[in-house]
Amino acid sequence: MSLPTRPAVDALAPYVPGEQPQTDGWVKLNTNENPYPPSPAAVEAIERTARDRLNVYPDPLGTPFREAAAEVLDLPGPDWVLPGNGSDDNLTILMRTFVDAGQAVACPYPSYILYETLAAIQGADVTRLMLDRDWSFGPRAAAAARRARLLLVPNPNSPSGTYWSAETLDRLRPDDGVLVHDGAYADFATGPGPRALLSDDGGSRSTVLTRSLSKSYGLAGLRFGFAVARPETVAAMNKVKDSYNCDALAIAAAAAALRDRAWFDDNRAKIVATRARLTAGLRELGFDVTPSDANFVWSTHPSGRHAEIYAALKARRILVRFMKFPDATAFGPNGLEGLRVSVGTDPQIDLFLQALREILPSV
Amino acid sequence: MSLPTRPAVDALAPYVPGEQPQTDGWVKLNTNENPYPPSPAAVEAIERTARDRLNVYPDPLGTPFREAAAEVLDLPGPDWVLPGNGSDDNLTILMRTFVDAGQAVACPYPSYILYETLAAIQGADVTRLMLDRDWSFGPRAAAAARRARLLLVPNPNSPSGTYWSAETLDRLRPDDGVLVHDGAYADFATGPGPRALLSDDGGSRSTVLTRSLSKSYGLAGLRFGFAVARPETVAAMNKVKDSYNCDALAIAAAAAALRDRAWFDDNRAKIVATRARLTAGLRELGFDVTPSDANFVWSTHPSGRHAEIYAALKARRILVRFMKFPDATAFGPNGLEGLRVSVGTDPQIDLFLQALREILPSV
Repeated sequence: MSLPTRPAVDALAPYVPGEQPQTDGWVKLNTNENPYPPSPAAVEAIERTARDRLNVYPDPLGTPFREAAAEVLDLPGPDWVLPGNGSDDNLTILMRTFVDAGQAVACPYPSYILYETLAAIQGADVTRLMLDRDWSFGPRAAAAARRARLLLVPNPNSPSGTYWSAETLDRLRPDDGVLVHDGAYADFATGPGPRALLSDDGGSRSTVLTRSLSKSYGLAGLRFGFAVARPETVAAMNKVKDSYNCDALAIAAAAAALRDRAWFDDNRAKIVATRARLTAGLRELGFDVTPSDANFVWSTHPSGRHAEIYAALKARRILVRFMKFPDATAFGPNGLEGLRVSVGTDPQIDLFLQALREILPSV
Repeated sequence: MSLPTRPAVDALAPYVPGEQPQTDGWVKLNTNENPYPPSPAAVEAIERTARDRLNVYPDPLGTPFREAAAEVLDLPGPDWVLPGNGSDDNLTILMRTFVDAGQAVACPYPSYILYETLAAIQGADVTRLMLDRDWSFGPRAAAAARRARLLLVPNPNSPSGTYWSAETLDRLRPDDGVLVHDGAYADFATGPGPRALLSDDGGSRSTVLTRSLSKSYGLAGLRFGFAVARPETVAAMNKVKDSYNCDALAIAAAAAALRDRAWFDDNRAKIVATRARLTAGLRELGFDVTPSDANFVWSTHPSGRHAEIYAALKARRILVRFMKFPDATAFGPNGLEGLRVSVGTDPQIDLFLQALREILPSV
């Protein structure tokens, strides 16, 4: 007999995450990790938890983390917070809570490609909201967004780093669906916080924010994200999540990381400063760089030889992300391609720019 | 507007996991945790990983763990192994890989109630395979099992601790579906290992084994399980799993725990010995105890006052699991109820038995 997989799974090309060499010696600017180690308080929380009660199940709801999040984000209570095993877990929970097979999941394009994979697994129909050349939503995209059951908007967007205003997103809000502000990179932008986005404006019941500790807290190895929504929305999502989706180490470390505001503020300032240095350096070398509110920048080179530049950098053990969006015809007849470069440390960025200086004349 | 949740989610009563007090001072015999701390090698692996590269994403496939599992379980290669964020994650992946809405998911009853919750979330139809009074599958249950798209059998079963032979399970194998041996408690039983269960008997392509490190490795707080299947089956499931479903700490700790065979053998021997002590002690007090191949026992008392016994134990800060299966009419007109008691340390079991001695006369 053949393997009885679902047709939706048979048809699926597996999502390919960015390269993750598990050895040292790479300048890794390809998956938007934070180049600095996390808060020492998070590491200490892991060590303490590892020596204490690891044989016992964790708190199913991650209460210590929810309490920390409610305090730090000034929310009415912990029941506004749903912890996730990485924010991809929250996105999967959203699909399974709100979307039946055949319903429409909308997301911008070019954007985070995982949304389309998750929608396909759920048997949903994907509606691509084609972004204009300046990364804005035109009237046709807005109309399609309003018809979606689930609208996912990464804000800031990847790969562009574009940050859309709350008013822009409100104009996209589905008439009978859920609007997700995916804030994986929101900590690097300046905009309204969760409390303001969930204020009682009539739409807040169907608004969900997702956040990640991978980037802005330097904890990509820990897998921890969370959703913020009104309590009745959190309760619905809680029915779908795995009972113990977050482990004891992650709950303790995430709570400690969130409470270390000094680490956060200092780290954020460093990333924002290096982002400016990276942007200026790329522009000096002739790249077109999209203004970014995230911890990466999107850049294209007039030569169009992005694949070659990527390969030459990789030969020097510098990884960036070479990305192609062939259907993004607003950007040109062959779509869009370019390099997404994560903000590393200043020395890493200097190495990267120096390598480009040597590579560019020969591509 | 009302919250646009899926009808399947609206209809769902959330799965209620066993009580997890997050304070000390409890004798916890309610959720089948291992009463001993895990291998020191696992704790050291966590500490090492916490201080090294936690800002970087983990290996998406958990390669160090897959290699350890292939070695320890004598599998042909790491591509026979799919790591999971707890074995509940593997069960969810199985549903989403193989079951479309309206297809049949079969599982024994009384058994692990989470299967029904996961099937409902997927929009599947649940087929309960009603067990006979001696916890065996009758001809009608076997026929229903063979029509399932996905058949989930916990072996040993919870709450009974019953271990079914491989031949028994082969007689249940779906004609056009997948047979899952859920081995969350398999390490406490004696039976064929994964290699034998997946030998090329014609059915092995549609056989999946799931395992958990929560119980037999003392790592419930870590959330780590894995599936074992032929590589093409693992590849299909890999399309559905979250890209980074296991964190760096868990991958390192799970690999180290699996390789520490001395810890495993010693721990298993202790649990099996205490299980005998617990069984004998309960029988001495008049309980009927089902022979168990797991790290818990199922017991009923002739008084039928299981709720009262549970409550009196809880008042003494001893937690066991009071369970009711009202539809299990093979066991009696009102179904089945009883107490599931996890195997603790010898002192914990002695405390428990002593408490029962004091409680029983008054219930």
